Amino acid sequence: MTHSEQHLLQPTPSAYTYPLLIKQLLLNSMSLHGDQEITYRGDMRYTYRDFNRRIAQLANTLTALDVRAGTTVAVMDWDSHRYLESYFGIPMMGATMFTVNVRLSPAQILYTLADADTEVLLVHTDFLPVIEQIRDQLPLLRHIVVLSDDGKLPEHKLALAGEYEALMAQAGTQYEFPELDENTKAVTFYTTGTTGDPKGVCYSHRHIVLHAMATALSVCSPGGSQRLSTADVYMPITPMFHVLGWGFPYITIMLGLRTVLPGRYLPEVLLKLRETEKVTFSHCVPTILQMLVSGAEKTGQDLSGWKVIIGGSALPPGLCEAALAKGMDVFAGYGMSETGPVVSLALTPARGAPATHADDLKLRCSTGRPSLMVDFRVVDEEMRDVPRDGVSRGEIVLRSPSLTPLYFKKPEASEELWRGGYLHTQDIAVMYPDGVVQIVDRLKDVIKTGGEWVSSIEVEGLITQVPGVQEAAVIGVPDAKWGERPMAFVVAAGDVDAKAVREHLLSHVQAKRLSAYAVPELERILFVGEIPKTSVGKVNKKQLRVDAPQAA
Amino acid sequence: MTHSEQHLLQPTPSAYTYPLLIKQLLLNSMSLHGDQEITYRGDMRYTYRDFNRRIAQLANTLTALDVRAGTTVAVMDWDSHRYLESYFGIPMMGATMFTVNVRLSPAQILYTLADADTEVLLVHTDFLPVIEQIRDQLPLLRHIVVLSDDGKLPEHKLALAGEYEALMAQAGTQYEFPELDENTKAVTFYTTGTTGDPKGVCYSHRHIVLHAMATALSVCSPGGSQRLSTADVYMPITPMFHVLGWGFPYITIMLGLRTVLPGRYLPEVLLKLRETEKVTFSHCVPTILQMLVSGAEKTGQDLSGWKVIIGGSALPPGLCEAALAKGMDVFAGYGMSETGPVVSLALTPARGAPATHADDLKLRCSTGRPSLMVDFRVVDEEMRDVPRDGVSRGEIVLRSPSLTPLYFKKPEASEELWRGGYLHTQDIAVMYPDGVVQIVDRLKDVIKTGGEWVSSIEVEGLITQVPGVQEAAVIGVPDAKWGERPMAFVVAAGDVDAKAVREHLLSHVQAKRLSAYAVPELERILFVGEIPKTSVGKVNKKQLRVDAPQAA
Repeated sequence: MTHSEQHLLQPTPSAYTYPLLIKQLLLNSMSLHGDQEITYRGDMRYTYRDFNRRIAQLANTLTALDVRAGTTVAVMDWDSHRYLESYFGIPMMGATMFTVNVRLSPAQILYTLADADTEVLLVHTDFLPVIEQIRDQLPLLRHIVVLSDDGKLPEHKLALAGEYEALMAQAGTQYEFPELDENTKAVTFYTTGTTGDPKGVCYSHRHIVLHAMATALSVCSPGGSQRLSTADVYMPITPMFHVLGWGFPYITIMLGLRTVLPGRYLPEVLLKLRETEKVTFSHCVPTILQMLVSGAEKTGQDLSGWKVIIGGSALPPGLCEAALAKGMDVFAGYGMSETGPVVSLALTPARGAPATHADDLKLRCSTGRPSLMVDFRVVDEEMRDVPRDGVSRGEIVLRSPSLTPLYFKKPEASEELWRGGYLHTQDIAVMYPDGVVQIVDRLKDVIKTGGEWVSSIEVEGLITQVPGVQEAAVIGVPDAKWGERPMAFVVAAGDVDAKAVREHLLSHVQAKRLSAYAVPELERILFVGEIPKTSVGKVNKKQLRVDAPQAA
Repeated sequence: MTHSEQHLLQPTPSAYTYPLLIKQLLLNSMSLHGDQEITYRGDMRYTYRDFNRRIAQLANTLTALDVRAGTTVAVMDWDSHRYLESYFGIPMMGATMFTVNVRLSPAQILYTLADADTEVLLVHTDFLPVIEQIRDQLPLLRHIVVLSDDGKLPEHKLALAGEYEALMAQAGTQYEFPELDENTKAVTFYTTGTTGDPKGVCYSHRHIVLHAMATALSVCSPGGSQRLSTADVYMPITPMFHVLGWGFPYITIMLGLRTVLPGRYLPEVLLKLRETEKVTFSHCVPTILQMLVSGAEKTGQDLSGWKVIIGGSALPPGLCEAALAKGMDVFAGYGMSETGPVVSLALTPARGAPATHADDLKLRCSTGRPSLMVDFRVVDEEMRDVPRDGVSRGEIVLRSPSLTPLYFKKPEASEELWRGGYLHTQDIAVMYPDGVVQIVDRLKDVIKTGGEWVSSIEVEGLITQVPGVQEAAVIGVPDAKWGERPMAFVVAAGDVDAKAVREHLLSHVQAKRLSAYAVPELERILFVGEIPKTSVGKVNKKQLRVDAPQAA
């Protein structure tokens, strides 16, 4: 026995050493909430008990398809009960669930399916045409199981293992899920960066369990503003293929919440489900929030009591105001594909609750306060913490129990991500004395003009406050004199012009809330029909840089 | 690379693999709640920032006393800020904190100090006389540091390393706490069983962190009845030497709560602090609750808004009613020294909240619902789950991330505790269909009469409902005809006699809520001045069995 081993607790041989496994997230739910309900689109309904039985049936189904420990099983589906079953059943077997981004191009989907060593694919009928195109380039792919909403199969040329429900019906309802090492790879998916090949992010059982516990506690505990409890009704509006639905399906199943799976994200369907199913807790990107608010404004629907975490990109203050006016309780969360994802939440705590509406709005739209267990730093290039003064800028770097330890098969990118032992987010932020963080830009989106840094996000936020503006995106464009100058792309919803936008920005300059060099020239404020988006709904600034008029 | 290793996530070399360590419980608090207050008895006050600095000073102080990784540092103190500093500073160094039960006899204290290999002792002046008696029998003990409330030292013959505050004043305020293995032994203390030598229970950093997260979430999340949030003010009333204050000092510091450390537990001091410091969250044993309720009844003090978890022994319905009448929000929790301790809580959730006062009372006084992540079973002697029918009895056996993996230096007792891979509690319980558990007895306290089992706890609960009864304890006494018969010891607070007690029990027999053979004969209902207690305030049934009149 070495000196250091002496201080470790060596359990008695019979003692059960408790690895952190996804199956344990079900323990409490199944004991206390077995009759709780899960519904798919309000049509199909079953209980947690049924859900638990079907997880076993899925494991038996996959075992019959020779899925073993370490096999990659890919899923292509809209948000459904089948997806939720996969979230548990696949990793609980010891296999790896790969949540395929169905919005990628067929070429990218092929790349990711191949890169992830996919052997079995569960695919919704809507995506069969994509798979038909690429099937013969996936030699490792052994079995395709079809997910069908009506039990019918469209025409196709694929060799199939069968239809999901038909296979499940033949499968046994008991399965002894193994005691895995908690560091076993549980899920993988691909970052949808705007440059380079998609990169595979991986999480273990331990990562997922600790993310669920720490994030749930961070949402549950702030005093006087409890945003999540067992009385809530949950509906995801971040696709389950996108960073594990931000981890919330694991959290809400752990807590035993009634769960509404909406299928495809059609605003009218989402708004109807929210009403008929009495949904109280969701999460989505600003683009979806915009659609929900617009939809409710058209119908006059009241959205009171709907708590919605906004992430993916910054929550524009104008949109936040519109959502609050509809009765929604919206606030930002922050994270990335690589970070679990949630690492901070813009929750209002009882102590130090904002005194004014403006402060409340500012907090709700901020990057938020670090979650429990997250070592959240804003550092300069020498990894020194910048002052917490709300002005000094630095990069957000992180440690937490839930960060991806690597990019799959990409050792160099992995080392770059983790240089110095902290995960580098490439997000530039300031920190306020009370610990609230505000991202001011992406490292690559910061505009450098005349030696000064301009935050594209800050200017975008101000432009969305101009009456008649629906959306705005700001990029840096080359400028002979200043190096770069900001250029704004604006989508109008009402009567607004470039002059009104510029005057609003200048009023903030006069009030010393914005630097003069951050205001685009009149000819660099362009009105457009729409702003290009990436596959997950983020503004595609790479595309905007290509599209930008060079003469402007 | 073996087959099984392939499925484990091997982080990129630079990636920070995040061990679960006590120091991480401070991350969020120090970032967001640095100005939060900790007070000792309402006299001394400092901020979390001061607390953090003093943890570093404590580590430097102990380093100067040659405390190293693995060194056992024992603490003998009332609940104080110094104790709280020890909770963090000692294990964060890699040393082991031993929380000495100051209510044990000098011989038992000697036994536990020696058994734990204590090298350094922090001891309050009140306990110096005890240490004087046993000092020369502790050859491993190298240093004694005195904790003094007034900076003065009473007369004594001991060689001392110094007084805590004097040593702290000389210590540096920076300390680089090491990155430990999460399985490093962090704390130890001794079970105060009524038979045999005390047994040392051990917890690692991982045990403590996971207990804090799972228990906090279990208290925070039940819908509509949130019992703990960052807006609460915390005062422990379970001694910090007793099962780590049931783990709550770690939880409340993690969440950033204002913290009131009351020193000794004098009812009038506790009631005063609760009022002046606006305490909203505590935990205590029934005996202390009884003192608090009686004290408030005398002064007419209203205790509304005080949420108090009751553990250590069953919460008697009569006492629960009295506490509710004073405005307290009391409910039971369950656990043991060996279990972290909290494994279940008798919280009212929004869904399925009790409809009637009687049902509410029954739930509050129950063993509760299993906490998150706890595999909580009630099993027969062949380890089969008993039916969840509220009638079938079995032993509670457990797995959770926070159970002691062993008794220190006691391999046989450790194996017995963990036989079959589950921790055996020796508590006999029933489980209801909704997952609520009710302990009906200790394995050794069950009364076997005429081949039937009688729950001593059930009879005790009914007796405490009789007007004029303050407390009751029931044991089995030998009986020639029936093998055993129940005998009740009753403490009267008003006008009550054995006949009234028996009639009350018989009314429950008539209502079919109690078996006839569970009612003691009139001559086996004895009124006594007090009921003997163990050092932690539990009824000492072993003593009662010795005291019981043999003729009765």
